Amino acid sequence: MPPHVATPDALALPDLAAIVAARARIAPHVHRTPVLTSRSLDAAAGARLYFKCENFQKVGAFKARGASNAVFSLTGEEAARGVVTHSSGNHGAALAYAAARRGIRAHVVMPDNAPKTKQANVRGFGADVRFCAPTPQARAAACGEVQRETGATLVHPFDDARVIAGQGTAVLELLEEVPDLDIVIAPVGGGGLLSGTAIAAKGTRGSLRVLGAEPANADDAKRSLASGRVEPVSPLSTIADGLRTPLAPRTLAALRAHVDAIGLASEEGIVAAMRLTWEKMKIVIEPSSAVPLAAILERTLDVAGARVGVILSGGNVDLDRLPWQA
Amino acid sequence: MPPHVATPDALALPDLAAIVAARARIAPHVHRTPVLTSRSLDAAAGARLYFKCENFQKVGAFKARGASNAVFSLTGEEAARGVVTHSSGNHGAALAYAAARRGIRAHVVMPDNAPKTKQANVRGFGADVRFCAPTPQARAAACGEVQRETGATLVHPFDDARVIAGQGTAVLELLEEVPDLDIVIAPVGGGGLLSGTAIAAKGTRGSLRVLGAEPANADDAKRSLASGRVEPVSPLSTIADGLRTPLAPRTLAALRAHVDAIGLASEEGIVAAMRLTWEKMKIVIEPSSAVPLAAILERTLDVAGARVGVILSGGNVDLDRLPWQA
Repeated sequence: MPPHVATPDALALPDLAAIVAARARIAPHVHRTPVLTSRSLDAAAGARLYFKCENFQKVGAFKARGASNAVFSLTGEEAARGVVTHSSGNHGAALAYAAARRGIRAHVVMPDNAPKTKQANVRGFGADVRFCAPTPQARAAACGEVQRETGATLVHPFDDARVIAGQGTAVLELLEEVPDLDIVIAPVGGGGLLSGTAIAAKGTRGSLRVLGAEPANADDAKRSLASGRVEPVSPLSTIADGLRTPLAPRTLAALRAHVDAIGLASEEGIVAAMRLTWEKMKIVIEPSSAVPLAAILERTLDVAGARVGVILSGGNVDLDRLPWQA
Repeated sequence: MPPHVATPDALALPDLAAIVAARARIAPHVHRTPVLTSRSLDAAAGARLYFKCENFQKVGAFKARGASNAVFSLTGEEAARGVVTHSSGNHGAALAYAAARRGIRAHVVMPDNAPKTKQANVRGFGADVRFCAPTPQARAAACGEVQRETGATLVHPFDDARVIAGQGTAVLELLEEVPDLDIVIAPVGGGGLLSGTAIAAKGTRGSLRVLGAEPANADDAKRSLASGRVEPVSPLSTIADGLRTPLAPRTLAALRAHVDAIGLASEEGIVAAMRLTWEKMKIVIEPSSAVPLAAILERTLDVAGARVGVILSGGNVDLDRLPWQA
């Protein structure tokens, strides 16, 4: 087994070489997304911002990278038995997409209250959708059942070294395009994107600062870094609901090793940053994508005068209900 | 006076050389905008579509090109007396922007019912805003008054060879990036963008088909091409209100010489194409930008199986009131 494939070790992480290998592996299946800039946002931030547009990625989110790396890392024998995951969001669609590209079966476990559009999205790639009660226990049980029935490989949304390696490929492209960045920032929920970003960035240049950003209402990553153990998410809700996920021991280990600081963003700040991005950059981003800019504008991350790469994680929003509309 | 500068001849048009010269002249002042594609939209259209993203252009619209070419074509003496135009929309902001880049005065005449945000936008570039009654007569009178007072040069939104040359630069970039296009399509209002696009495209390769698209509720360009004279716009309203403008004899002459066909789009079709573009491409475009795609999807333009360049004209919309929301 090559070293970049997940091992049973619950703390295994990819190294830079694994991320470089992931990039070559997934290149035929994902977009090299553009990097956009905006003078207006630079002026507001007091820094030079380079936005890596994963909202333009396949399935509308960076998740296509990690899912593709996991699926195309499988042996032929593993692949023949399919893959399974639990997700009501972008990772479910991403795994369904990647499995369709490889021509294998994907099973996606969703809470039975998941929006119809998200179900349709996953089914659109030919995946099998299974429903469960909206609890972590029911979810794990449903995944386990699929695995016993089919022998499918579980591809966790973030607690998986192959997935983390895939997510780290976005910042490799960004650094190729803008080599002299001082800082890179990614939003943090379960920590897959931030882990991959941090490993890739620090591996490329150790002096690069790597920052995370999360909603103040879901500040568990910041608390986890302070306490040194995985802290639960708070019961508060957030518009960036994709970030309302605790870390795993694996992603916490990556963040402790490689992330310099985590900034928080208020709910109003996230909505304002999202709207500002739509208005000034003319691109559609989802609330989670706006969290790094919100943290910059609320000065909970210090980027003054720096050249800053920001990963815009995705663009899947309900266009009928925008958060700045009453 | 070089041959690409407007002459008193009301039918003077730029040639390819003038558009190539315009491109070099405005390059320091405008973005080279990206070209984006979407498999979903290709599937819906039954063609391969290449979108030239002028929604990412300075001031959010292609108008920055024509205005910059006009302003930077002025002699030092002309420039010192400033520029004037009438526009409640993107051209007013574009002229204000270009004048600010050259460090000269711009006067923008607006109807006194123009939205406050549009006034603020023009003033944000330091331009002088003058109000007039919302009629063509009052508008012309107000422009004439500014010219008499200041000696400013009138930069018409489209009835101007320098402006047309500037608008033609977008398709030059598109053809450089995607040389083997079969067709290019631009929306048509007053005809500045379509004239410049057609002259540049046919000048580059005579076999390229050049198509226009306009709302069925503002089908004056199609009627004008049929009758051979400038037809008035119909009294109907359209969501693509920037296209509710009659041609000028100058732009009609360009369209008669170089445009192969004009397709119409229904109001529902424009809104649906706009929404589809936001949803699938994750970019913010204004209704006028969606008219070519709407005409393709409603099959009033035949592009089956072709490689089609589509100019997305702009991205300035009121994010509080989206047309698909009741």
